[in-house]
Amino acid sequence: MTQPVSADLVITHARLAAPGAEAQAPLQALAVSAGKISWVGAIDAAPSARQTLDARGQWLTPGLIDCHTHLIFGGNRAQEFAWRQQGVSYQTIAERGGGIRSTVTATRNASDAALLESAGRRLQTLIDEGVCTVEIKSGYGLTLEQELRMLRLARQLGRDYPVNIHTTLLAAHALPPEFSDKDAYIDHIVQQILPAAVDEGLADAVDVFCEGVGFSPAQCERVFSAACALGLPVKGHVEQLSDLKGARLVAQYQGLSVDHIEYLQAEDVAALKPSGTVAVLLPAAFYFLRETQLPPIAALREHAIPMAVATDCNPGTAPQASLLTAMNQACILFGLTPDEALAGVTTHAAKALGLHTTGELRVGHDADLLLWDIGSPAEISYGINLVKPVRRWLAGVEQ
Amino acid sequence: MTQPVSADLVITHARLAAPGAEAQAPLQALAVSAGKISWVGAIDAAPSARQTLDARGQWLTPGLIDCHTHLIFGGNRAQEFAWRQQGVSYQTIAERGGGIRSTVTATRNASDAALLESAGRRLQTLIDEGVCTVEIKSGYGLTLEQELRMLRLARQLGRDYPVNIHTTLLAAHALPPEFSDKDAYIDHIVQQILPAAVDEGLADAVDVFCEGVGFSPAQCERVFSAACALGLPVKGHVEQLSDLKGARLVAQYQGLSVDHIEYLQAEDVAALKPSGTVAVLLPAAFYFLRETQLPPIAALREHAIPMAVATDCNPGTAPQASLLTAMNQACILFGLTPDEALAGVTTHAAKALGLHTTGELRVGHDADLLLWDIGSPAEISYGINLVKPVRRWLAGVEQ
Ligand SMILES: [Zn+2]
Ligand SMILES: [Zn+2]
Repeated sequence: MTQPVSADLVITHARLAAPGAEAQAPLQALAVSAGKISWVGAIDAAPSARQTLDARGQWLTPGLIDCHTHLIFGGNRAQEFAWRQQGVSYQTIAERGGGIRSTVTATRNASDAALLESAGRRLQTLIDEGVCTVEIKSGYGLTLEQELRMLRLARQLGRDYPVNIHTTLLAAHALPPEFSDKDAYIDHIVQQILPAAVDEGLADAVDVFCEGVGFSPAQCERVFSAACALGLPVKGHVEQLSDLKGARLVAQYQGLSVDHIEYLQAEDVAALKPSGTVAVLLPAAFYFLRETQLPPIAALREHAIPMAVATDCNPGTAPQASLLTAMNQACILFGLTPDEALAGVTTHAAKALGLHTTGELRVGHDADLLLWDIGSPAEISYGINLVKPVRRWLAGVEQ
Repeated sequence: MTQPVSADLVITHARLAAPGAEAQAPLQALAVSAGKISWVGAIDAAPSARQTLDARGQWLTPGLIDCHTHLIFGGNRAQEFAWRQQGVSYQTIAERGGGIRSTVTATRNASDAALLESAGRRLQTLIDEGVCTVEIKSGYGLTLEQELRMLRLARQLGRDYPVNIHTTLLAAHALPPEFSDKDAYIDHIVQQILPAAVDEGLADAVDVFCEGVGFSPAQCERVFSAACALGLPVKGHVEQLSDLKGARLVAQYQGLSVDHIEYLQAEDVAALKPSGTVAVLLPAAFYFLRETQLPPIAALREHAIPMAVATDCNPGTAPQASLLTAMNQACILFGLTPDEALAGVTTHAAKALGLHTTGELRVGHDADLLLWDIGSPAEISYGINLVKPVRRWLAGVEQ
């Protein structure tokens, strides 16, 4: 073996979390250079380094990735929650101004500073759990100006906090009050909002809400088609409440991910394979909505479709700023194994964002690293509020 | 109005959380003297004080009370969790040494320092959420020496951390390996463990696990009878997995609380009324065990039985160190209102511990206080990991 080149940091005596890693995984070493993992191997073969850390048998994982959030929003929906728990009907709540429109109003009316402050608090909570990459969607602005503002604020959060932010334009989230016709709003998205977001470099991907209460497959396809023409990857909220075959549509457009998918039929799962589309499971929304229809986990496993897990953090259907709890919920509510949950917030979550050099402890990947004082990686998914990483690096820099 | 006497602390411009408090609750003042709430009323009538705090419209609640935990234990059961998620049967897991016996072994083998360290970490997590009083049960020692050690360590945690600890002797938790006969072990509890715990002043209450896999009502009654003779209040894990009429038994002994009660029949709920017994709901265990049988919430409301909510924090069936999440779970899974959830971790939780001067914002109660930057008390139960108290006082001393 040739003498390895010197590194910025070498972490020794660490156990490396990977699918199937057991409590007695071998102690290894990992080197970091220029923000990337530059070497992984046996301790006694580790390169020299400017800094060395003895992990004393603790576990290393990749930084966690929350690949589906609506983190930026004004207000909250606690009052609606209270009404719902008191037995007030959805109809009455809508008449009282509740639902997604109340969040659109609150978001539009909030100052940039207020939105950065409230989203920043939620973001810091995720960071404290070990999240190193967060996807943030627009979708509570629903006008050209307000959708772009949401994406700009998302980029701003990426400068203000030690975290990588990926932005997704979700103008096709709901019909704004300015429009009475969904097709006319889709025209506006395709002709105005989407090109402007691309011009300013504000969107890393484009998303749609394909559902009866959202937009039809034909409307979503118009958005996808325009996004593809502009070179943006697509993804979709599909099959959450009903089966509109949105997942097949996403796959046709080589989409990065299909998200929610409780109503995806087992026979449609194979359609995700050729495009490498990731199945993003959002168990928090399932929990908060008291859903009973389970996503087709067995079929996803059978066809080896990568499964990601995310918070879906939003004020209406998933008011949850905890990716670790989402991992637990994916196990308890959807039957994932702890290995699947961990892959779901690392390697598969990266894939759901179109990222190829983050999410794994392998040479060439970003040195977004977490050290955990645990006996085995299963401990990360096993409970709620029991563990947090003890150290955290972003691009090789300890935070 | 006579001039109020001077106080140690006056908090002004606060909204006081109480059942039914709306977002626009009036701004009030609250005074603290000698560790107690000494005055509550209109801001302009507040007494003079050595220290004044302007709450600027933020909300005050009583300190939270987690009235049912098994916080002290050795090891964890993450490996079992992984096996279960992989489809390994309970039978096979038991053969591999899993289940409660594995926790008994790990607890017995752990040093005092190790148990204090691991329980202390969980305790600190609860404290960070605003918990000011925690009940801790024994029940993983199951010998005279080890049960007393668990209770002594629980008392020690109360000295080491800024929190009130209440101890409960739960020797009748499981049959220890030293015994093959449950009645013989009950003899040992009644004749040896219980009197010794009383002699040392280690137990504030006595609990039993009344269940097929635990102890029969007749066996539990022997423990209750002995506890009453020694002047200790009783409570019970009852009707969690089946209906053995344990709740009726607890009520006969004027018990403080019946805990779990998923299988309590609606027609047995009235029996709790004369004794003032509290129904302690443990939604985390319901969640982790994927139970479907719901506790009789409607009947409990109808008979005005006080409902408390607790974590049940334990390594097997409720690995959760979050009372705020338990409040949310009580709403989502059991249909409580946010008002009921808040009463469940304050006034009713106090009652479940036999405490009469804590858990409410009223004169004479302990000045265990939390200040929250929220728009309404419903926000505390509404989500997961969204809010935490911004300030916290224990007996009037800010922590
Ligand atoms: Zn979403
Ligand atoms: Zn318990």
